Amino acid sequence: MLEISELFNAAAVLKDVARPTAVIPASKLETDCQLYLKTENLQLTGSFKLRGAYYKISQLSDEEKKRGVIACSAGNHAQGVALGATHNGIKALICLPAGAPISKVEATKGYGAEVCLVPGVYDDAYAKAVELRDKHGYTFVHPFDDPKVIAGQGTIGLEILEQLPEVEAVVVPIGGGGLIAGVAFAIKTLRPDVKVYGVQAAGAPSMYESVKKGEICHLNNVSTIADGIAVKQPGDLTYELCRKYVDEVVTVNDDETAAAILALMEKQKVVAEGAGAVAVAAVMFDKLPVKGKKVVAVVSGGNIDVNTLNRVINRGLTKSGRKYTFIIDLYDKPGQLAGVMNVIAQQGGNVISVTHERINTTTEINGCSIRLELETRDQAHIDTIRQALLDAGFHVTN
Amino acid sequence: MLEISELFNAAAVLKDVARPTAVIPASKLETDCQLYLKTENLQLTGSFKLRGAYYKISQLSDEEKKRGVIACSAGNHAQGVALGATHNGIKALICLPAGAPISKVEATKGYGAEVCLVPGVYDDAYAKAVELRDKHGYTFVHPFDDPKVIAGQGTIGLEILEQLPEVEAVVVPIGGGGLIAGVAFAIKTLRPDVKVYGVQAAGAPSMYESVKKGEICHLNNVSTIADGIAVKQPGDLTYELCRKYVDEVVTVNDDETAAAILALMEKQKVVAEGAGAVAVAAVMFDKLPVKGKKVVAVVSGGNIDVNTLNRVINRGLTKSGRKYTFIIDLYDKPGQLAGVMNVIAQQGGNVISVTHERINTTTEINGCSIRLELETRDQAHIDTIRQALLDAGFHVTN
Repeated sequence: MLEISELFNAAAVLKDVARPTAVIPASKLETDCQLYLKTENLQLTGSFKLRGAYYKISQLSDEEKKRGVIACSAGNHAQGVALGATHNGIKALICLPAGAPISKVEATKGYGAEVCLVPGVYDDAYAKAVELRDKHGYTFVHPFDDPKVIAGQGTIGLEILEQLPEVEAVVVPIGGGGLIAGVAFAIKTLRPDVKVYGVQAAGAPSMYESVKKGEICHLNNVSTIADGIAVKQPGDLTYELCRKYVDEVVTVNDDETAAAILALMEKQKVVAEGAGAVAVAAVMFDKLPVKGKKVVAVVSGGNIDVNTLNRVINRGLTKSGRKYTFIIDLYDKPGQLAGVMNVIAQQGGNVISVTHERINTTTEINGCSIRLELETRDQAHIDTIRQALLDAGFHVTN
Repeated sequence: MLEISELFNAAAVLKDVARPTAVIPASKLETDCQLYLKTENLQLTGSFKLRGAYYKISQLSDEEKKRGVIACSAGNHAQGVALGATHNGIKALICLPAGAPISKVEATKGYGAEVCLVPGVYDDAYAKAVELRDKHGYTFVHPFDDPKVIAGQGTIGLEILEQLPEVEAVVVPIGGGGLIAGVAFAIKTLRPDVKVYGVQAAGAPSMYESVKKGEICHLNNVSTIADGIAVKQPGDLTYELCRKYVDEVVTVNDDETAAAILALMEKQKVVAEGAGAVAVAAVMFDKLPVKGKKVVAVVSGGNIDVNTLNRVINRGLTKSGRKYTFIIDLYDKPGQLAGVMNVIAQQGGNVISVTHERINTTTEINGCSIRLELETRDQAHIDTIRQALLDAGFHVTN
């Protein structure tokens, strides 16, 4: 099992590789506690996974190192293993499902790993990795259910206690459970008075269900924007550590996670991926009994696809009234569009796009409709523009 | 004039207020040097301005403190002054142009300042601030041309030397010149071997022109997405310090700045505003003789409007082939749209929006055209989709 001395050893090994990422006050997020962020999204590979993978690889025997390592991952673990292996001067082979985003494939190659693209989904890539391990004698680096990997992730717990000794609660994302197992073990061993809470995506609540039922549960389907923690089943070891050391596990839905991503970006100036934002989401949306406490939320990673980030921003802008699409029915005669535009301009709305349609079954035969996508200041601004359009005699249908 | 002892004094005063922001390796940005980021965008108010404003206010006499301070700013300086005054228990009045973004007005109020919204533009707000100062005896806190303010910003230079003693060059954004005056003074006094470079927006090159001509220049118009450094004229003191201590001043254009903002977000997981990204842009686009060197770029702030950020991302996605809008001419008969969609689906394109127009002067009388906005992987992916559409007999016009 795990010893606290192993975590200190991991910290020493990681000293020159993994950055001791800053704990920064999240004073601009609206919460009822004193929230701090452990910024593992600013870790070298953009996620904490480097720690566990690197430490695991560093502890292999010379014989094992010579044979090389293999892992299966479409994400952060792949990059961690790749960098860990390269730094240790050994060969790494990463099996990825063929549909993995090119950016992740390139990043993994960029850290010096060989990549094996396997047709199919994650499970196919996993089967291929096992096959190659058996055939060539590679060491399989598990993404979470391994004591060395857990010890590596646990160094985050040690750092938090050193960086903010007055911490009262730590909130940690859970996928397979490697991160929280290590962090909770570190904190409960050294400072049993500090609470440790876990957060899962509501669309992938495998550890949440397992802890609730008192046995490891397997989910057939998982679906969440927090793809880094979309894990169907916790590990045996991570489940045991979680049951023993974690005070409570809660879930957040995708809208809450998206709101946390936007708030982190807008207020705290850091980019978090979905999995990296769930701990902050749990605090923002009052899922945990931390009122008035000094709380550290682990922002575990920042590797979010920019297209996804773009959608999260757009959704957030719409929800907070800073973007709105008006639909207005018009008579199809000259000057109508100019009239609308004048009203918008007077009210300080900033036009992003205009779609003008002359044929529309919902309008009169000689009518037309326009869709106006606007940047607005807030909901009140939208209401003001709407009223001004109505006052000018326009028929606003949205 | 400035003494180095004053900078150490400022550092001591700021110890409990301004975070000593981390210097993090920017190993994922493609540059030909070893680039590090001094992350002042992660400073408490989202920008370095807090340092100078706070230190200036802390050094006022009791009499001056009792009368309160006044400042004029639509941005980071306002928030710095507001927080500085509140922490020192004194009254702050900030004059803002009435059209300032609500978010900035709210942030300034949020730090405890009183806000005076002045009809008109920045110059009108400035005139009002001067009027109120003369009437009520407030102390005016200048955003840059003040030795105390410069000493406060200079603490960033002290921190860089401590955090990365092996640094060989420091790259600093320039607006009015307060930041670079302080940083360059600190660095050239303590470590004259370290180069200090300044970067301005090509659309607001007031210090660049002044240094080149050897006298202070006034620009009539400035225009740049780096609004935080859109300053028409450098200060007298900042100009003198810049001339004496800065090795070279260069400019970057808005496209380069936008590319730097996107790269910082995507690769390094931090949000920078335009002004905060120009130093990184100068390094990314090879404006400086730093090949192979250890370079620190000061990311001075992160207070970018999310709508602007959204546009920067969209532009970046389009430029890098991860977003594309196809325009396809079709015969207006059933099944055509389905045919196009099948091709897109087979090629793995992800449809964001479809606009289908039946009336279009460029198509035949019984024709129509569709605009398809797609998420794509890269330029090669766009080319593959285009070829598949052509192979299927569709008429692709964009």
